[in-house]
Amino acid sequence: MAYDANNIFARILRGEVPAHRVHEDEQTVAFMDVMPQADGHTLVLPKAPVENLFELDDEMAAAVMHTVRRVAAAVKTAFDADGITLMQFNGPAAGQTVFHFHMHILPRHADRPLRGHGRTMADQALLAEHARRIRAALDAGG
Amino acid sequence: MAYDANNIFARILRGEVPAHRVHEDEQTVAFMDVMPQADGHTLVLPKAPVENLFELDDEMAAAVMHTVRRVAAAVKTAFDADGITLMQFNGPAAGQTVFHFHMHILPRHADRPLRGHGRTMADQALLAEHARRIRAALDAGG
Repeated sequence: MAYDANNIFARILRGEVPAHRVHEDEQTVAFMDVMPQADGHTLVLPKAPVENLFELDDEMAAAVMHTVRRVAAAVKTAFDADGITLMQFNGPAAGQTVFHFHMHILPRHADRPLRGHGRTMADQALLAEHARRIRAALDAGG
Repeated sequence: MAYDANNIFARILRGEVPAHRVHEDEQTVAFMDVMPQADGHTLVLPKAPVENLFELDDEMAAAVMHTVRRVAAAVKTAFDADGITLMQFNGPAAGQTVFHFHMHILPRHADRPLRGHGRTMADQALLAEHARRIRAALDAGG
């Protein structure tokens, strides 16, 4: 399947659609999932137009993982999480719903199951506050 | 928590416990999960003694992702999968049960939900056959 340049993440990357960003560098962006499975659910994307894992090259994969590690540490701190789950879906059968590669960062607490994927749109003010907490943790060094 | 040098994956890496390996290079190893959530469920590990995402350095993360991409493509081919899900757990609250970093590669089919995590030990001969199929796909170039 060819990369669809009008997928929602491509539009966010072009600034056509707003997002609650927590990090941006030359190769990657991180922002809040608008249908979070847990408070603090964050996505990390390469800026390059790649649909899935199989289209990433080594340099993009390294850049994504560098950002994932930094943002995951900040999410863990910001939400006082007991653990972090990473998930990444390739193809509709795997649960992929937006066809631009993205890694899910999910803060986990011992007593809290995840909410369903893509069920409920979060309140925008709440997402903005969550993004602010993660940026503060990043600024403080994770 | 300090790295436990006697965790089961450390013992596999030292050759003290057998595993159905599909790939090995200087920095990484890939082998079959013995309690697969789907046929073809494969794990990719760095050889370095790191417990979780937060202990990986950039070089290890890049090496892991390089192997994950290659093995995931081979798993997709070998099991004629519609998609691939990656999962990676940090901390017991996130579902981590072995405390050496590992990425789960799960082949997905449109009509098949995943089995539960860590429920049923697979037949060893079946795992050997699955590993053989993945190695054949790797040898054929993914």
